[in-house]
Amino acid sequence: MSDNQTAAYPRPLDLGSVSIEDRYWTPYLNLVRHTVIPYQWEALNDRIPDAEPSHAIRNFRIAAGAEPGAFEGFVFQDTDLYKWLEAVGFSLSAAPDADLERIADEAIALIASAQQPDGYLNTYFTVAEPGRRWTNLTDCHELYTAGHLIEAAVAYYDGTGKKNLLDVACRLADHIDSVFGDGPDRIRGYDGHQEIELALVKLYEATGEHKYLKLAAFFIDERGREPHFFHQEWEARGRTTHWTPGVVQTRPPALDYLQAHKPVREQEVATGHAVRAVYMYTAMADLALHKGDASLLAACKRLWRNVADKQLYINGSIGSTHHGEAFTFDYDLPNDTNYSETCASIGLIFFARRMLQAEPKGEYGDILERALYNTVTAGMAADGKHYFYVNPMEVWPAASAGNPGKHHVKAVRQKWYGCACCPPNVARLLSSLGQYVFAADEQTLYTHLFVSGEAKLTLAGRQVALRTASDLPWEGAVSLTLTEASGSGAFALAVRVPSWSKRTSFALNGVPLAPEIRDGYAYVSRDWRAGDVLTLALDMQPRRIYAHPNVRANAGRVALQRGPLVYCLEETDNGAPLVSLALRAEAELRPVAGEGRLAGVVLLETEGVRLAYSEAPSEAAALYRTEPPEPAPQRLLAVPYSLWGNREPGEMLVWIREQS
Amino acid sequence: MSDNQTAAYPRPLDLGSVSIEDRYWTPYLNLVRHTVIPYQWEALNDRIPDAEPSHAIRNFRIAAGAEPGAFEGFVFQDTDLYKWLEAVGFSLSAAPDADLERIADEAIALIASAQQPDGYLNTYFTVAEPGRRWTNLTDCHELYTAGHLIEAAVAYYDGTGKKNLLDVACRLADHIDSVFGDGPDRIRGYDGHQEIELALVKLYEATGEHKYLKLAAFFIDERGREPHFFHQEWEARGRTTHWTPGVVQTRPPALDYLQAHKPVREQEVATGHAVRAVYMYTAMADLALHKGDASLLAACKRLWRNVADKQLYINGSIGSTHHGEAFTFDYDLPNDTNYSETCASIGLIFFARRMLQAEPKGEYGDILERALYNTVTAGMAADGKHYFYVNPMEVWPAASAGNPGKHHVKAVRQKWYGCACCPPNVARLLSSLGQYVFAADEQTLYTHLFVSGEAKLTLAGRQVALRTASDLPWEGAVSLTLTEASGSGAFALAVRVPSWSKRTSFALNGVPLAPEIRDGYAYVSRDWRAGDVLTLALDMQPRRIYAHPNVRANAGRVALQRGPLVYCLEETDNGAPLVSLALRAEAELRPVAGEGRLAGVVLLETEGVRLAYSEAPSEAAALYRTEPPEPAPQRLLAVPYSLWGNREPGEMLVWIREQS
Repeated sequence: MSDNQTAAYPRPLDLGSVSIEDRYWTPYLNLVRHTVIPYQWEALNDRIPDAEPSHAIRNFRIAAGAEPGAFEGFVFQDTDLYKWLEAVGFSLSAAPDADLERIADEAIALIASAQQPDGYLNTYFTVAEPGRRWTNLTDCHELYTAGHLIEAAVAYYDGTGKKNLLDVACRLADHIDSVFGDGPDRIRGYDGHQEIELALVKLYEATGEHKYLKLAAFFIDERGREPHFFHQEWEARGRTTHWTPGVVQTRPPALDYLQAHKPVREQEVATGHAVRAVYMYTAMADLALHKGDASLLAACKRLWRNVADKQLYINGSIGSTHHGEAFTFDYDLPNDTNYSETCASIGLIFFARRMLQAEPKGEYGDILERALYNTVTAGMAADGKHYFYVNPMEVWPAASAGNPGKHHVKAVRQKWYGCACCPPNVARLLSSLGQYVFAADEQTLYTHLFVSGEAKLTLAGRQVALRTASDLPWEGAVSLTLTEASGSGAFALAVRVPSWSKRTSFALNGVPLAPEIRDGYAYVSRDWRAGDVLTLALDMQPRRIYAHPNVRANAGRVALQRGPLVYCLEETDNGAPLVSLALRAEAELRPVAGEGRLAGVVLLETEGVRLAYSEAPSEAAALYRTEPPEPAPQRLLAVPYSLWGNREPGEMLVWIREQS
Repeated sequence: MSDNQTAAYPRPLDLGSVSIEDRYWTPYLNLVRHTVIPYQWEALNDRIPDAEPSHAIRNFRIAAGAEPGAFEGFVFQDTDLYKWLEAVGFSLSAAPDADLERIADEAIALIASAQQPDGYLNTYFTVAEPGRRWTNLTDCHELYTAGHLIEAAVAYYDGTGKKNLLDVACRLADHIDSVFGDGPDRIRGYDGHQEIELALVKLYEATGEHKYLKLAAFFIDERGREPHFFHQEWEARGRTTHWTPGVVQTRPPALDYLQAHKPVREQEVATGHAVRAVYMYTAMADLALHKGDASLLAACKRLWRNVADKQLYINGSIGSTHHGEAFTFDYDLPNDTNYSETCASIGLIFFARRMLQAEPKGEYGDILERALYNTVTAGMAADGKHYFYVNPMEVWPAASAGNPGKHHVKAVRQKWYGCACCPPNVARLLSSLGQYVFAADEQTLYTHLFVSGEAKLTLAGRQVALRTASDLPWEGAVSLTLTEASGSGAFALAVRVPSWSKRTSFALNGVPLAPEIRDGYAYVSRDWRAGDVLTLALDMQPRRIYAHPNVRANAGRVALQRGPLVYCLEETDNGAPLVSLALRAEAELRPVAGEGRLAGVVLLETEGVRLAYSEAPSEAAALYRTEPPEPAPQRLLAVPYSLWGNREPGEMLVWIREQS
């Protein structure tokens, strides 16, 4: 269903073509399937005791006329249900579940019943402001909300073959197509929160309808052009915002916050709200691929470089400030006031996957993996029922409670959020994990991530099945076995060589091999036969990581990494204050087996020192003194960052002081 | 004019009894007299090009009916003029100036002409909301503004003997006394911003009118009692605030922010807006002294302990967050997001001076000195025309511009502020410096600060003049010479021994002496004769200062101090990023003479290392890497914190990493 220009680049395999059976990931996928999806359904129905209510289902019932009442929640509250349905669609692709599908179909019927005769669908405007559709795109997430419906519809169609939600989505998309554009009586505008653009590309891919691709391109091409739409809209609205009704503002919306300060092709650095930015970059990359648009691809590469080289946290998270949940500026990566929203890492993963299609370079996979193995997994508790919105590098619980500049940094995962974007986003990302592992073009099967399972596809005209086996992130041995390979003829396996693996060895059927390594991928091309086995031994040596000297926050500090996992210190293992601890420069980093709640987890043990005073640091001791503290030896124990906060609440620290 | 209970404790000498001729302070006093006071007069008249206008004089002219127009500026804009007049009053005490007095008299006539027939005086309410007097004490600073008028009136009366402003103040105070109280038809309330309380004590001291002391005590005693006045007032107002008119709030005012969460005698820790807190503590100490109120004094001591031991920055500043310009919690002293308002250090100096009256302990003088020599002086540029509101421990100019959480941290002093509380506060503090140097009771003359000059007083029935000579903060030799001593009979000289002087030697008429040291004061009691000389040699060895381990921000870091001065690194001397630098643990700290704009200043030179990569830290270099940076030796040069930011703009750092 794609146009001609798109044939050359590798595409992710369908979820239905990839099965995952992985010691590390299968428990996460099962957690999503058996716990998270049911739990979030309860949350959407306001049935979680002591948690902030969602209102989402109730808003749809009110919009459909099924019950009286007023809209409650954020303007984008509908998206919680849409993201949940998207996760359900992904989950059903891999594991059919009649009960779940029945619940989902009922939810879809409810959504359909709230759709207006002209195709419009948004419970906030239908219930609360019926006459004010499309009057405040800056603030009201109206197209964003539509985009999540579309994404859900495509996933549900892919997962079940049912068009019930897809038809709703197409009716809404057609309505939007009739409202927006550069023709007469059209709104020449775009949404404050990008999302519709990448969703419309998916709708085009699912339906083959070019008008959806064209509409996505309109939103992207129009953004940032003068006269500025958001300023015009603000004037037309009487200089008000949705958030403080009736208050006339003195300043118009900040365009760089909305990535609308200049045309997207001219944007040089990542600015503004981090989730909006990476959702937009994802759509830009999609459009660059589908349309063969070189200037758009160049902008994507430039923005990627800025994020990767200057605005990325070591856990693969982005957004240095909670003010606007936003990027700040190059090398500004504070550890204890950052935002690093879970959703933003998910968007970064979306962007990275598109960039891997544009050019299979290991660095895209490296950052995709960094965000996935660290931030996305950290976003959810081991019980699947508690979530982080913010992913800090350093937590002092007393400061989270007592310093207003750190109130956003939670020391304990929360049951739900009034603005609950992150929990269902984690669910939909994890349940679509299979889309991120492999990609293929005509001649090459790419393995981006090392996840045990099987992929089936047609490659160079041959029916091929590839079984991968890996114990990552704990062990570095990886095997790729051709379990099926009909006919004959050459094709290539391309395997990402992670940048963290300093020495990687390869073997083919047990015989050492030195494959061609190009841009971080090892290419082995041959007339592959069933039973052929390509093995990799990845280097799992724990490493110390140092930040660029321009990162003020990490001067004299070191982070620990083993394989794809970043580690951290927790108070429960090491005692507070954690910053009193320093890692000795020469100390060995020893992998050790975790116990109790950390059974099966590889921890890192090493030697450090604690700066302390010979007398106990009593409350009455002087705040300032001339006697230096004495370094006392202490064993340090680090745990994977993704698992922090699953035991007693306390301090957490990623960047540890280093001392010679 | 004081009541009987107050006779015992030492009191500051009148400004007219103290003359200052000091190599360090006289230039500041001259700057205030010849530059700051004239410059601020221009600012009050909106005549500073490119600076935010004050509107203050214009508001009075409008309120007096002398010109048409609308009120502009903050609700407390009047106080900028009042604080300026207070500084003028102090300045005229020491140095009569007919031209200045004429300008001040004209300003006072303008103020008097804006006073309403019933004594009410506030240009905001008179011009903008004439029917809404006393309806929003929480937000509108109405009594605060009155307090500053009263302080100005007392200073102008003391400085000139003229009652023109004192009469205005008494009429206003009498009006307030008729409106507030626990009687019928009285408002049983108090101001959101404390200030009137300490001002009324001054008015009582100046006039002998007990009703003013009683009204001050009413405001203090009433504060924090249930039912909570600020909650009642909020309900009566329809749950609105002054700052967002018409918007109904969901939560009432935060009482701990206003120090009204519990009766003042029960408050355990410093909370909320830092300036309000220390202004209140000052009034509490005043009242404890005047009324012999032991429970109030106990609360003052407890709150002092909390501030001094757990919430004080090394530069004598307070207020760990810009959110509400407020205290946060114990040991939370972040270096790069703190507020540390200049006004709050001035309020802390007020509080410390009262505590020195309650009990002459060196620690009060130590912190008074720390705030004066570091924050108050840092608050004003060497040119007297640029000011800091916020006094950070660490500045990265790019972050001040690019990270919204640090927008309040200015890297360059500003010409004026829309909310210009700090500039005139510095002027009034410096021009009243003589009030902080000496205090006396019947038998003892206390020297709190080492400022060259002369004090004249009656002590033990004798006419005494004491001349002090000191080259602090640069040199440690101090002499106190009795230049006059009529009659005979014993009295004591009590001299503060600063805690930074680890070894202090004393001599009397050249003969070594081991005086009684009690609570940080050296007492020498004898039948002093004219010509007697007491000398002190203070220890000026530069010191490294370490923070309590609970202060997370300073782990592994050290600050430098010599005498009363805290030092810092500046980018212009040491290069950026400053946090890449570490001080060697064993390195000597060498005093060296400053040059150019720092001529006459003692700098500190020492050896450190810079963490850097062998290749230049290019913009394209990886953000994260496994190769450790290499320490390269570098000479470090530190300048007094009070003088930072007087050369090329750049980074500044107080707490320096230390490396063994």
